[in-house]
Amino acid sequence: MPDHDWDDRGFEEDPWGAPESITATPSNDAEQFELTNDHNLWSTSPRAGKKAVYEDGTSIDWLREEASERARKHRLYSQHGIRGLLLPIIDSSRLWIVLIATGVGVGVTGAWLDVLVRWLSDLREGRCISGLFYNQVACCSGLDPGDVCTEWLTWSEWLNVRSILGQSLLQSSTYITLAIAFSGSAAILVLTYAPYAFHTGIPEIKAILGGYVFDAFLGPWTLLIKSLGLALSVASGLSLGKEGPLVHVSCCMAYLVSRLFKDFRHNEAQKRRILAAAAAAGISVAFGSPLGGVLFGLEELDTFANETDVIWRGFVTSVIAAVSLQYIDPFGTAKLVLFQVTGVSDTWRAFELVPWLALSVIGGVLGSLLIRLNIAAAIYRKNSILRDHPLLEVVGVTAVTAAVSYLIVFLRVQTSELVANLFQECDPTRGDFHGLCNPNALGENIFLLLITAAIKIGFTAWTFGIMVPAGIFLPTIAIGASLGRAMGLLTQGLHRAYPTAWVFASCPPDPSVRCVSPGFYAVIGASAMLGGVTRMTISLVVILFELTGALSHVLPIMISVMVSKWVADVFGKDGIYSSWIAMRRYPWLAPVEFRDKGETAANCMVPFERIVTINADGMTITELLDLLKSHSFYGFPVVTQRTRLLGFITREKLKSTVETLQSDDDTSSQVPPTYTFLPPTTDAAPSTTNLFDLLEESSIQLKKELPLELVVNVFQKLNVRYVLFSHTCHLTGMLTKSDVVSLITAKFPHEGVLVDTAEPPEVVWDARTPSQF
Amino acid sequence: MPDHDWDDRGFEEDPWGAPESITATPSNDAEQFELTNDHNLWSTSPRAGKKAVYEDGTSIDWLREEASERARKHRLYSQHGIRGLLLPIIDSSRLWIVLIATGVGVGVTGAWLDVLVRWLSDLREGRCISGLFYNQVACCSGLDPGDVCTEWLTWSEWLNVRSILGQSLLQSSTYITLAIAFSGSAAILVLTYAPYAFHTGIPEIKAILGGYVFDAFLGPWTLLIKSLGLALSVASGLSLGKEGPLVHVSCCMAYLVSRLFKDFRHNEAQKRRILAAAAAAGISVAFGSPLGGVLFGLEELDTFANETDVIWRGFVTSVIAAVSLQYIDPFGTAKLVLFQVTGVSDTWRAFELVPWLALSVIGGVLGSLLIRLNIAAAIYRKNSILRDHPLLEVVGVTAVTAAVSYLIVFLRVQTSELVANLFQECDPTRGDFHGLCNPNALGENIFLLLITAAIKIGFTAWTFGIMVPAGIFLPTIAIGASLGRAMGLLTQGLHRAYPTAWVFASCPPDPSVRCVSPGFYAVIGASAMLGGVTRMTISLVVILFELTGALSHVLPIMISVMVSKWVADVFGKDGIYSSWIAMRRYPWLAPVEFRDKGETAANCMVPFERIVTINADGMTITELLDLLKSHSFYGFPVVTQRTRLLGFITREKLKSTVETLQSDDDTSSQVPPTYTFLPPTTDAAPSTTNLFDLLEESSIQLKKELPLELVVNVFQKLNVRYVLFSHTCHLTGMLTKSDVVSLITAKFPHEGVLVDTAEPPEVVWDARTPSQF
Repeated sequence: MPDHDWDDRGFEEDPWGAPESITATPSNDAEQFELTNDHNLWSTSPRAGKKAVYEDGTSIDWLREEASERARKHRLYSQHGIRGLLLPIIDSSRLWIVLIATGVGVGVTGAWLDVLVRWLSDLREGRCISGLFYNQVACCSGLDPGDVCTEWLTWSEWLNVRSILGQSLLQSSTYITLAIAFSGSAAILVLTYAPYAFHTGIPEIKAILGGYVFDAFLGPWTLLIKSLGLALSVASGLSLGKEGPLVHVSCCMAYLVSRLFKDFRHNEAQKRRILAAAAAAGISVAFGSPLGGVLFGLEELDTFANETDVIWRGFVTSVIAAVSLQYIDPFGTAKLVLFQVTGVSDTWRAFELVPWLALSVIGGVLGSLLIRLNIAAAIYRKNSILRDHPLLEVVGVTAVTAAVSYLIVFLRVQTSELVANLFQECDPTRGDFHGLCNPNALGENIFLLLITAAIKIGFTAWTFGIMVPAGIFLPTIAIGASLGRAMGLLTQGLHRAYPTAWVFASCPPDPSVRCVSPGFYAVIGASAMLGGVTRMTISLVVILFELTGALSHVLPIMISVMVSKWVADVFGKDGIYSSWIAMRRYPWLAPVEFRDKGETAANCMVPFERIVTINADGMTITELLDLLKSHSFYGFPVVTQRTRLLGFITREKLKSTVETLQSDDDTSSQVPPTYTFLPPTTDAAPSTTNLFDLLEESSIQLKKELPLELVVNVFQKLNVRYVLFSHTCHLTGMLTKSDVVSLITAKFPHEGVLVDTAEPPEVVWDARTPSQF
Repeated sequence: MPDHDWDDRGFEEDPWGAPESITATPSNDAEQFELTNDHNLWSTSPRAGKKAVYEDGTSIDWLREEASERARKHRLYSQHGIRGLLLPIIDSSRLWIVLIATGVGVGVTGAWLDVLVRWLSDLREGRCISGLFYNQVACCSGLDPGDVCTEWLTWSEWLNVRSILGQSLLQSSTYITLAIAFSGSAAILVLTYAPYAFHTGIPEIKAILGGYVFDAFLGPWTLLIKSLGLALSVASGLSLGKEGPLVHVSCCMAYLVSRLFKDFRHNEAQKRRILAAAAAAGISVAFGSPLGGVLFGLEELDTFANETDVIWRGFVTSVIAAVSLQYIDPFGTAKLVLFQVTGVSDTWRAFELVPWLALSVIGGVLGSLLIRLNIAAAIYRKNSILRDHPLLEVVGVTAVTAAVSYLIVFLRVQTSELVANLFQECDPTRGDFHGLCNPNALGENIFLLLITAAIKIGFTAWTFGIMVPAGIFLPTIAIGASLGRAMGLLTQGLHRAYPTAWVFASCPPDPSVRCVSPGFYAVIGASAMLGGVTRMTISLVVILFELTGALSHVLPIMISVMVSKWVADVFGKDGIYSSWIAMRRYPWLAPVEFRDKGETAANCMVPFERIVTINADGMTITELLDLLKSHSFYGFPVVTQRTRLLGFITREKLKSTVETLQSDDDTSSQVPPTYTFLPPTTDAAPSTTNLFDLLEESSIQLKKELPLELVVNVFQKLNVRYVLFSHTCHLTGMLTKSDVVSLITAKFPHEGVLVDTAEPPEVVWDARTPSQF
């Protein structure tokens, strides 16, 4: 079994998307070679050696990527004649090709995943005699209302087991065995082929969109295994959803499509803009919520800040994905609304605000609790024997989940079916969902719903993190919906028991008219729980609308999200995704409002004494090589006269130049030439030994007296990777994105707990000591 | 008649909210005096003379405001004992008091405006005999279905006019006279008391939220007159809506409430955050769309970029405003959804995409046309005799509008009633809206709808800019809805004529089942038209949902907004609001992606030779006073040894210090002392004549070799007011926000056409020559 520990950042398991090696050997792969062709119009690189080569685990330099994109655009638009007309059109059409292909791909994938999940999960209970590959609904379709479906047989019916005991034993053992088989295969697939395909993927996508380089996470194997594993793990009945993983799948797909075109392959900033649109498409397909997808990108992934073009692209991709999904129509309903709320009375009464507010508070508290339990489980897993036996853990968790679920009727069905039924009002023509609509079993139902919610919290806290693809949205919705329905049943019961009480005075006097809609209480419960777990606001409300169609009740939904977020924030500001980012210590700069306590940049920066600089007045090849060998920093400030700051040079650019120079100068070995980095004086001829041109054109210099708050703001808003501090022209310090990230995450108690300290120092994102990374 | 020309920025007409004078006299009003109290904990200013005093027409310095807010917070949190516990709580509770009060105020105002408008506009046709102050609906309420309302009498019935000719003459003349009376009074109110209360207000709010200082725009008189004038102008039947003005009213209200607290009064950045939340509440109430309000703030006002706290506050304020509105329930429907789409079939057919796409394209083209016509009208108004007779113009426009509207049945009713009916499917039980549902009058109806749309385009283009409060949302919706309904009727007619044609194969074979829903076509038309005029995307879709409840048709609405924006962008990138901002030349930095053509900052900056600097090596009081007198710039770079850059000092800080020094040193007049601005050396005692401490702590210095794109980005994202360029410590140039704004708006052909060139040079936002503003 290969080493599948997440944090090793070992890439050998990814045969297709193999990233550059993380050692210091020159990157001389084919792509790099192509780029040395100076006149290649399609190349992102304006001149040889200028391309940024990022290693996995590092963070991109947005300014530099933008500069290279700008240079490419200029060359494109400076063509004459027909080329000058056509090339820009071709150029922008390629972006749209990628986006459209991604949208269609995501829609189709999402639809087929739905079909696959439904078939697999029905298989746990029985089979269709017309053909093994029909699911229960397809098998029984075409019947008149009232007819009994004879095509679909449970396993015991099919095997002709007559005794009740034998039937139960056979059914339950098949149910549990198949569940274990499904989740076990998912885990084996993940462990063998794509170690990054487990979990939700949203924390990583957030980090990647923020500039983290993690190409292996988006490889084709990950795409394949995550899709397949997702279907298997959802079908196994584990307490997980498909929403987050679909975002990951969607980003993998966009990455794959974008690699067809060289400019996207070589420009990390452009690539991230495409990924942002793809993420929106993922949510769009997962919830049938095209608008929610865009807003999720806007709010949770925080990628669109100020870039109207990117919002716009996300919007289009999201719509295309939803259209594709609806065209395939996997459920045969011709509807995008997944969990249609039906039969909700159009008006709501003021007294209902009391149970709804109670639900919101409960949602906030339980949401925080779920996050804490999940963190505790992750830490325990990391530090216990489970760490070395992930497959066993998956099998164990599945066995327990399946056994417990089989006993409780609400847990036995697919989570999506449970949610759909909890959201619906009881209607005699639609049948009774496992006794939920039996008015005489009120106490039992409330008890059962509470048990369901409690068990789901425990299972979800553990499951979200085991070695299978797993999202947390749907289980959270199920927990909230169970609680909400219980609250709704309670209120309804009270109303029925005391119809004349003064609180119910606003209800219609006719008892046959429904006053309390427990189905809508389930929606409120779901939104409160989601608010507590994810801490999203606007996108959550929109997703809930589009999921349930309950537009007329926008206000109660907004209020519940609001209150639950307020309550949950008391127990800690971080949502589930930020918590995982902090635990994994990704270099993700949260877009939070950072307020310093009077500190200036000087309190936080790496002081001049600890910075490795390049002496612009003259260094030999050997000295430069030594420097490159002994320090793996992203780049070095260039100074003259010991402290006077001239600029910044990136490691990669320096390395490729030094290597070229080294091979050129092999013969003249007696007196090694020294190379300077001094600004060219106007009268002097450009010297071959002056490397001033290598200095970055876009580097930001600030004064160390600036308030820390402002400096953090510069990092957050301008996406810079480093900032140099100077005072009357002398270098006084330096601050990197990693320093700022650790400054912001320092308050999170479990910061970095999932990071392996045995990693090679080059890729350690060290948060303790400020680094020159 | 006072001079009411917008662009004069003459403030004398605003007796309550009088801003600081725009001349160079010291601002020594009472508030300024309060702030010199150094130990006042609630004051925004950390020390005397540090407060930024902005004059109307200038732009705030965000960095400086943030610094002062930071200093205030530190003092607050550094208190000990109970004070240290209580003060921060009181501090943050005040923010919420302002927001909640604003939300409730806006909700109540919106509700009463609705009531007032309905009453006034019904008054044009008749009166209630039970009491003059009942509107038609209230007058006729309480009747059984089928009963004829005898309480409401038209004017001719009331006056017992029997002859048909007499009736028509009386009705039409009352209609036109009252319309003129309403709009005339609105115009007189605006002209006399609040010249800023006309138009929509959204362009100004955008500019203010972006940092433009325009306190007179938010004064209490403006609030009062805009609310009252809005009711009058809407009731007059002019082609305008109440949506944009409600945003303005909402911001005025927030401004008024926030002035109760000194910290909000004195911190421009905080004030803007409150205004952003208020703007969201305005849209929330205008459309009954709490979510749309937040998204409008996010997308169109672009105020929330990256600031989750601000989104969150907008969310809460928006919900509170909507709850207040619903509590008052002005329409007695207990619903937030304004124009409920009813009877739309749940599914749509693929062939319908053809008419929908056609509508989207038409919407995009006509939206652009409307913008161009409106610009042409504004320019004509500015340069013709109309400029001096705004009241006459209003009366004339109203007379023409009322006369034409009286003839065409769809124009005669209130625009909101027209839209509500166009969005609804024909239903025999609901009655026939002026013959719209008569299947035998198909051709007539289509013709009438097209005429309505054409007339409305003309009227709207002219009306949006005359001297009454006027929004453009509702007329745009009406134009689109008319076109859409016409297209829907056409499609329906085709289907009825050729039910067996192959294109209609997907329709149900039973002709009694509706296949084409013309009401939904009207929604598509409205969204296409709105997309073309406003160029918003997400917020538009959400507003349309919340307005119509047509959630199941999210995809067609998204597609139509998408296509219409695409088409309209071909004819020019600017929406109606950006066009007005450009015409008025507000210092508003559009959040567009700016791509340079290879220029660097050096191409755009004001070079060193043209910058007025302060000599740090020593200047006398007289020299400093001369400098302050002869230049009205916001501030001055401080240099030593002629070019070595030390920092930046703001005019206001320098002025107050110099004035203090002047009064102190009156006696020692023989040898005037020179003041230096040099960095204190570590061993020297702090000198009284060294003013180094006055230099701004947060000023950004960049290199002039940076790509222009990046520099624009710094301005857009960090909200800075100026940037200094230096090269090896020497000042090389400077760039201000105004320069960047003019750089971006330069491509707009009508940039600045509405700006009066006769303005005093101090407040001219000069876009032609880079300035040191």
